[in-house]
Amino acid sequence: MHAPSSDVSSDQWAELAADLLARLRGRSPRVHCISNTVAQAFTANLLLAVGCVPSMTVDPGEVGAFVRSADALLINIGTLDAGRRDAIDIAVTAAAGRVPVVLDPVFVDRVPTRAAFARDLARRTPAVIRLNRAEFATLAECPAEAPHADALLSYARACGTVVALTGAQDWVADGSRLITLHNGHPLMAQVTAMGCAGSALVAACLAVEPDPWRATAGALVALGVAGEVAGARARGPGSFVVEILDVLHGLDRATLTQFVKVS
Amino acid sequence: MHAPSSDVSSDQWAELAADLLARLRGRSPRVHCISNTVAQAFTANLLLAVGCVPSMTVDPGEVGAFVRSADALLINIGTLDAGRRDAIDIAVTAAAGRVPVVLDPVFVDRVPTRAAFARDLARRTPAVIRLNRAEFATLAECPAEAPHADALLSYARACGTVVALTGAQDWVADGSRLITLHNGHPLMAQVTAMGCAGSALVAACLAVEPDPWRATAGALVALGVAGEVAGARARGPGSFVVEILDVLHGLDRATLTQFVKVS
Amino acid sequence: MHAPSSDVSSDQWAELAADLLARLRGRSPRVHCISNTVAQAFTANLLLAVGCVPSMTVDPGEVGAFVRSADALLINIGTLDAGRRDAIDIAVTAAAGRVPVVLDPVFVDRVPTRAAFARDLARRTPAVIRLNRAEFATLAECPAEAPHADALLSYARACGTVVALTGAQDWVADGSRLITLHNGHPLMAQVTAMGCAGSALVAACLAVEPDPWRATAGALVALGVAGEVAGARARGPGSFVVEILDVLHGLDRATLTQFVKVS
Repeated sequence: MHAPSSDVSSDQWAELAADLLARLRGRSPRVHCISNTVAQAFTANLLLAVGCVPSMTVDPGEVGAFVRSADALLINIGTLDAGRRDAIDIAVTAAAGRVPVVLDPVFVDRVPTRAAFARDLARRTPAVIRLNRAEFATLAECPAEAPHADALLSYARACGTVVALTGAQDWVADGSRLITLHNGHPLMAQVTAMGCAGSALVAACLAVEPDPWRATAGALVALGVAGEVAGARARGPGSFVVEILDVLHGLDRATLTQFVKVS
Repeated sequence: MHAPSSDVSSDQWAELAADLLARLRGRSPRVHCISNTVAQAFTANLLLAVGCVPSMTVDPGEVGAFVRSADALLINIGTLDAGRRDAIDIAVTAAAGRVPVVLDPVFVDRVPTRAAFARDLARRTPAVIRLNRAEFATLAECPAEAPHADALLSYARACGTVVALTGAQDWVADGSRLITLHNGHPLMAQVTAMGCAGSALVAACLAVEPDPWRATAGALVALGVAGEVAGARARGPGSFVVEILDVLHGLDRATLTQFVKVS
Repeated sequence: MHAPSSDVSSDQWAELAADLLARLRGRSPRVHCISNTVAQAFTANLLLAVGCVPSMTVDPGEVGAFVRSADALLINIGTLDAGRRDAIDIAVTAAAGRVPVVLDPVFVDRVPTRAAFARDLARRTPAVIRLNRAEFATLAECPAEAPHADALLSYARACGTVVALTGAQDWVADGSRLITLHNGHPLMAQVTAMGCAGSALVAACLAVEPDPWRATAGALVALGVAGEVAGARARGPGSFVVEILDVLHGLDRATLTQFVKVS
């Protein structure tokens, strides 16, 4: 429990998540995703399940036009290649000041060149960076043990961004506020692209909510509750993928209120 | 209801769709797909579910050999890149006069350069062009409101192709015949790659039916009925993807006859 | 029934498969996959379902670092392109003598240049080559009719590798031992990427079992039994994909013992 979030109750977060989902369903924002080839289909299906219009082109010649007509942009650096690197640069430039950007620095802990590439992107002021613990430790160049609230707040402040560190718990910090989310299910870590698709849902919520910290936390509350409900219904990771899309599609205020756990 | 189709009853379309599925299961045609990375897996699974043998390589050095030994070719221009552009040119050349081609001009309404690329492809006489309303308006350079039968018939005549405009209703026109299909389910628009996979099913049916207008309408009757049955069983978009593959795999004459709605 | 395997009973193979799954769940080996864009998501999900950590980058600049920190490497040559060819060369070099390699020579029977590329890879001593009958006939330059035990043993001996020929039955040979596996389900051939994902499971088992022949046969026993159980539960290919992941995730010794059929 961290002081800055104590003014917001669980019920209020359930309300916010429900409102964000209602806005997505009502406004159908366009979310352009430069994502890896492993995650693209599930990411598109998750965005469609909540009412968004995803697009996924990675061609340097086309990506600028897609971004300029989009309401949010996701940059996921899995399965990088030369074309994707160029496309990311063009897309981030096209988005600057117009379209909110989420950065998902996949596997920066595995290759130094990828970490350098992600650090450059982090300096171009994405609205949100979503990552796991090992990725945060690499990107922020800090120890990989349990994340300190201070490390998250200070990195968020330095980058002028929201940091969402997801895992068994999710932490969402901007320069001054931090909230911890306790929803989710272990099967979320046993299917591919769940983190990537979560980043896409954050991007979608940025398109309908001007406060990026609230957009991020609300998106992750919705995903965590959906995962928890889906996990209870699933018989394994195969059915979990099916269930979480079904649950997200129909997720309502009552379910969010019943399950939400924040501190 | 449009005059040219009034000579064919719903029962006859159910018969045709059932026959096409029987031919696919019996002959296992090879369908080569140059498709986008988002749609590839679902497209392959849909083709396999109806008994076809899909291949998906996009390498310019290999695609000619794959096309020459294929029974139909799908060109889908989502997630275009330089390699895919070259591969498409080589594939269409290899197919000319030998292998029927379906063109799926994904998102031509979003980028002018993509529209120009697709217009060039449309001039190379694909057997069928399958698209949605916004894509048709861009490709045919006509207003985006409700499609007029005349616009479809006239564009089909000008291009020497079948035009399949899919959406809440599907319209299938060649230069002189037009049919409207009323099957389907709203969840078909909330999962990714349904249009792309529909184009692949059209390509498959071209491999077993010489009249491209009948092949296209029959394929879309089968897909629309499968979508309707799957939609009634599904609890959301996740289970819908599962159900539609299961339904297509076992779709029979009786179900087609019960559900088909054409005019 | 072939003499070299007659010393190992079905029960012992069930034990081995159960042990391999327990080791995967306990050790979470990293499996790097250079695979095709059609198979990537299902392959990642299958690896995650059994407790592994998959990575999938194909970038020539990054793949070496991923391979050096991996416990096994899968090379699948579907959807080849220039970048993947370079990445494969770098990855195999990085793996040499340190990380066991599985080669999956997809569709070598369809393009001569692809066959030549795969033959070069086969000479670089992968631990295992997994393929279907047509691919084996092309790679080994022998007739495509029913595989002779002698052809498999002799090719395995010549290449210093394990050969796993999968289909309605699976044959697993090294230079001196051969076993035939009779599990599986027809739906395994009606969903995409099942062979590719099977190769990935073999790679995973190489990371936890030093005898590549036993690792391969054990992996394919597990997959075949999972397919058989999933096939009995599924209503078609859509639900089959879901079921096989669920079944593999929870597959236990008792089920393996009940279903395993080897000779």
